[in-house]
Amino acid sequence: MISFECDYNNGAHPEVLKRLIETNNEQTLCYDKDCYTKSAKDKIKLACDDDQADVFFLTSGTQTNATVISSLLKSYEGVIAINSGHINVHESGAVEYTGHKVIAIEGKNGKMEAKALRSYMEDFTANYNDGHSVYPGMVYISLPTELGTIYNAKELELLYNVCREYDLILYVDGARLGYGMMSQECDITLPFLSKHCDVFYIGGTKQGALCGEAVVFTHNNAPKNFIAIQKQHGALLAKGRLIGIQFDTLFTDNLYFDLSRHAINMAMKMKKMFAEKGYKFFIDSPTNQQFIIINNDEVERISQKVIFTHWGPADQNNTICRFVTSWATTEESLKELEKIWE
Amino acid sequence: MISFECDYNNGAHPEVLKRLIETNNEQTLCYDKDCYTKSAKDKIKLACDDDQADVFFLTSGTQTNATVISSLLKSYEGVIAINSGHINVHESGAVEYTGHKVIAIEGKNGKMEAKALRSYMEDFTANYNDGHSVYPGMVYISLPTELGTIYNAKELELLYNVCREYDLILYVDGARLGYGMMSQECDITLPFLSKHCDVFYIGGTKQGALCGEAVVFTHNNAPKNFIAIQKQHGALLAKGRLIGIQFDTLFTDNLYFDLSRHAINMAMKMKKMFAEKGYKFFIDSPTNQQFIIINNDEVERISQKVIFTHWGPADQNNTICRFVTSWATTEESLKELEKIWE
Amino acid sequence: MISFECDYNNGAHPEVLKRLIETNNEQTLCYDKDCYTKSAKDKIKLACDDDQADVFFLTSGTQTNATVISSLLKSYEGVIAINSGHINVHESGAVEYTGHKVIAIEGKNGKMEAKALRSYMEDFTANYNDGHSVYPGMVYISLPTELGTIYNAKELELLYNVCREYDLILYVDGARLGYGMMSQECDITLPFLSKHCDVFYIGGTKQGALCGEAVVFTHNNAPKNFIAIQKQHGALLAKGRLIGIQFDTLFTDNLYFDLSRHAINMAMKMKKMFAEKGYKFFIDSPTNQQFIIINNDEVERISQKVIFTHWGPADQNNTICRFVTSWATTEESLKELEKIWE
Amino acid sequence: MISFECDYNNGAHPEVLKRLIETNNEQTLCYDKDCYTKSAKDKIKLACDDDQADVFFLTSGTQTNATVISSLLKSYEGVIAINSGHINVHESGAVEYTGHKVIAIEGKNGKMEAKALRSYMEDFTANYNDGHSVYPGMVYISLPTELGTIYNAKELELLYNVCREYDLILYVDGARLGYGMMSQECDITLPFLSKHCDVFYIGGTKQGALCGEAVVFTHNNAPKNFIAIQKQHGALLAKGRLIGIQFDTLFTDNLYFDLSRHAINMAMKMKKMFAEKGYKFFIDSPTNQQFIIINNDEVERISQKVIFTHWGPADQNNTICRFVTSWATTEESLKELEKIWE
Repeated sequence: MISFECDYNNGAHPEVLKRLIETNNEQTLCYDKDCYTKSAKDKIKLACDDDQADVFFLTSGTQTNATVISSLLKSYEGVIAINSGHINVHESGAVEYTGHKVIAIEGKNGKMEAKALRSYMEDFTANYNDGHSVYPGMVYISLPTELGTIYNAKELELLYNVCREYDLILYVDGARLGYGMMSQECDITLPFLSKHCDVFYIGGTKQGALCGEAVVFTHNNAPKNFIAIQKQHGALLAKGRLIGIQFDTLFTDNLYFDLSRHAINMAMKMKKMFAEKGYKFFIDSPTNQQFIIINNDEVERISQKVIFTHWGPADQNNTICRFVTSWATTEESLKELEKIWE
Repeated sequence: MISFECDYNNGAHPEVLKRLIETNNEQTLCYDKDCYTKSAKDKIKLACDDDQADVFFLTSGTQTNATVISSLLKSYEGVIAINSGHINVHESGAVEYTGHKVIAIEGKNGKMEAKALRSYMEDFTANYNDGHSVYPGMVYISLPTELGTIYNAKELELLYNVCREYDLILYVDGARLGYGMMSQECDITLPFLSKHCDVFYIGGTKQGALCGEAVVFTHNNAPKNFIAIQKQHGALLAKGRLIGIQFDTLFTDNLYFDLSRHAINMAMKMKKMFAEKGYKFFIDSPTNQQFIIINNDEVERISQKVIFTHWGPADQNNTICRFVTSWATTEESLKELEKIWE
Repeated sequence: MISFECDYNNGAHPEVLKRLIETNNEQTLCYDKDCYTKSAKDKIKLACDDDQADVFFLTSGTQTNATVISSLLKSYEGVIAINSGHINVHESGAVEYTGHKVIAIEGKNGKMEAKALRSYMEDFTANYNDGHSVYPGMVYISLPTELGTIYNAKELELLYNVCREYDLILYVDGARLGYGMMSQECDITLPFLSKHCDVFYIGGTKQGALCGEAVVFTHNNAPKNFIAIQKQHGALLAKGRLIGIQFDTLFTDNLYFDLSRHAINMAMKMKKMFAEKGYKFFIDSPTNQQFIIINNDEVERISQKVIFTHWGPADQNNTICRFVTSWATTEESLKELEKIWE
Repeated sequence: MISFECDYNNGAHPEVLKRLIETNNEQTLCYDKDCYTKSAKDKIKLACDDDQADVFFLTSGTQTNATVISSLLKSYEGVIAINSGHINVHESGAVEYTGHKVIAIEGKNGKMEAKALRSYMEDFTANYNDGHSVYPGMVYISLPTELGTIYNAKELELLYNVCREYDLILYVDGARLGYGMMSQECDITLPFLSKHCDVFYIGGTKQGALCGEAVVFTHNNAPKNFIAIQKQHGALLAKGRLIGIQFDTLFTDNLYFDLSRHAINMAMKMKKMFAEKGYKFFIDSPTNQQFIIINNDEVERISQKVIFTHWGPADQNNTICRFVTSWATTEESLKELEKIWE
């Protein structure tokens, strides 16, 4: 059965696998000391055009979020996210497990608005800045968002301005960063992002790697001894090369973004197909996650033929269905999807 | 340069890699839901001859220790380990980060003795059992130990008896479990281990996998919702298949133990070589880690030709040097090692 | 200057102080072992008509909430509270510091409605019960609420029914429990409360003691070794008698509730006074906290003559002002308050 | 029955109680905002002759240790203490509960020696400074120690020198600080202590108060927002005045040290009495805790007439018995103690 369930149900991109095979017999240094990890770091810094960046490799998204957030917050600080933020709903309380509150505010189209953030900070400063409430120390956003939407450069800049005004760290969850940046609507590049946030991560797991995320601290602001922090969080691989080699490959010859663009092309075809068939969308997404509203009876019927995510009820009779493309999505699978309606 | 630094400086065993390649294009379910993870669990339960076992896959050793230990202890309980226990010295405080004290007692030859444990518990019960000291709730041992030594079946049984008498959970860190079990001196098998502890893990990272450890709760005693616990600890891979496929392969046709036996054979040849050259050993190890006492001048000289670990000073003039074999060690590399002295 | 700022700006009730003086020269056992602590526990159990209750004494409200909540939740569970719940906004993230998420849902008049709780649990069960979201393990409510309102017996019963249906622990924060129970509208008694929740605390600090809160686990459900848990949280006094003597006094001859009734009488007179002067109320409170809407200019003027809390803006021109009575409020202070408008 | 069990089995010194009574009817500001808290802070700073000091009041010793230690350590750092250090054995793992390892090293006569600390740090720097072991970030000592012994000025200075050399924070637990400083052998004063450590606390609970400890950060090094940290730890009293008034009284007219000197005088008389009767001491203590070795049969006999602490076995036939004097010990009780042997 074909699957559009998510962007992490395939293995790795063949080129990634090929490099793992080629290097398999080499003996390397361990943890973060091997040459591939070093090379991958350099390539990422170059791609970000950021000499001051520090790059670290972790294994999974939730692990990355919990480790990075707790490494930068003071014990009595929390992190602001929108209600639908991944750390707020889909990470089993991993951030709170490290002792920090996720301060949830309203979002719009899956995004945090600069004015909503400012409004929260004004209220906090006026009414809660007395030691009895959690101090906001960081802002968490996702690019693209959990709903497939993207910030444009102007929105990101405005948000970062508010962060700097209130001394908040801006952290960007880039689990699907490539899919966001290769969206036709996106005017944010890696160098721009590096200049407009304090730390972000470049997702590997959902973007062609077997596992792995690359954290980028953008301006000499990595916490001291971050490797010890990774170790303490269980977030340091003994065979660090596993992630190093993968990112070294993904950031060679623009592979990371080529794969991302492919996924977007597939998504746009899929989106067009659903639109032509008259389906409504829960939200207008320019990225690889598409949210289609489908009648409950039909949901049941097509579930026999294709795997997708039941995102939640749209209303009593309809369901929000998430269909996701990835670097691995083929024209063939799109055709098979279309056949369901023939 | 040849390296005997550790058992995690190679990639994966070719058979493991082959299976990753063969399955790469398949779309599977995620987290722990894929067919390979299920198959690997079944094979491990079979190898343990333990119908009541529950098996979970995590990514690395420190992560596994912190997640398992904190999942089983009550908030006010600690875990007893010997001074040289891995969780006590080499995990950056990962267990304490979860809120639990590592209660360190004296070991002997890298092992915890049943009588030492009993003595500690008698003292605790007589003098500290009043709510003002950390309650011991678990015993942590390693098989083989951090010094390459092994428990025999009788020693393990005695230790487990003390644990049961005092209501302590016995947890066995098996980062190198195969290398222990394939030692010529070892009379502990997987089924025996399953019956003589409460939880253990079968190491993958050091035993032929790219990454991954298999936790075995031995008698329907897995914490409820352990997957949520993994997620909260950042210890759940989205592409769980990555570890599932590897363990499925390692536990097919006895590969795991064949690889382990190879490493032991290599280690015994190496040990013999050092002995014949007149070197003294820091400890008599029957497993893949050998600790040789070498004069400091010579240490400097051979460091130009082979990578190994400086374990610590033996005395003012000599160093304890750790040489480690693995599933990947070749006869050729042993010969190259020997050539250093020609 | 007179103060209606809060109910913890006086010392202790004279009878409480008298008993501290009378017992001062006695040498007692320490922590929770002294005779006064034992006596206080017995009197509270009697007042609750609950043989199965376990009573423990802690020092302050935030400490009590964090200690009790974390002692009863599993590591991956969170506690449901309404947005305005004290643990959600006014405790500096003390609950999250213990590793648990506060799951905030909408309240109504400062209260959690049974149907809102059911709705949340239905949604959770249908859509989030997969290990990737925080499991709700407890419900936190306050009686009276942070807005001075109270649950009636029927509302509490309905809420507890939902809790039992979904296996949620019901915890009632009674920082001002007496002020709630002595409200003319309240039909909840200590015995009724004991039968309709799993754990609650009887506030001392705001109700006539220098410090101290009495936690009541209602049906043999106290966590094992709760004294060790208190110690670990820094929530166990060496001179436990300090709190024991105070609660022993407060629960002798109904003093606790007599004091509470006095505060309510004072509050109702104050409420009447404001109403007669034509002021509007932010909420209709039957307890010792009254929330009056006052024009900003007037707020500034009367702030010179009386201390009260600026709760927040009502609109651009008006402020919500909290005036609080307590066991220590006198008729004289009410008259002085009234004089401000003469 | 007379008791020499500990120094926290009486109420408060009469002068302390008198001030609580005199101020009882006053309405004050809350938390740390009242005038008595401010006055107490000023008096303590004056007594320390330390303009740069910041003073905060907490409720109990364990709470103070856990709050102060975790407020100053980075997440991956631990605190060095000797094996018998209070945080290592008698606080139910309160420090570990905040996520930090207590690194236990050997002590001598209850004290940490500068050379032992240096030796540990040299070993750490040479062999463990790689991100895989807990970084030592702080040194914890007690003055007087858990065994009643004291550091002299020279010893403290040497220890502090090592701390500064290795960038370690020096924290002094002064639960019984007055009893230490009033010992005839002690040449450490409050101003000297302020100059030779980074943070210490002045114990109140064991020194004449009902409860309360005063933390002194010695040189503008208090963590930002320490009140929020207290709140988060459940370590901030709503009626902060309770502790403020007590310390304001204890630091008026030298009461704190007068009380301490009295306890020492009583202890020395008691010590002389035991010596004259031919008893051996477990350790030579110049402070209010005396450790006498008594035959087990006699221990049983005198336990009928006086309460004291069974510290542990001296050998098979003898017990180490702790007898403690305090500010409240009377000549009469000493006579009664002596009568037991008549």
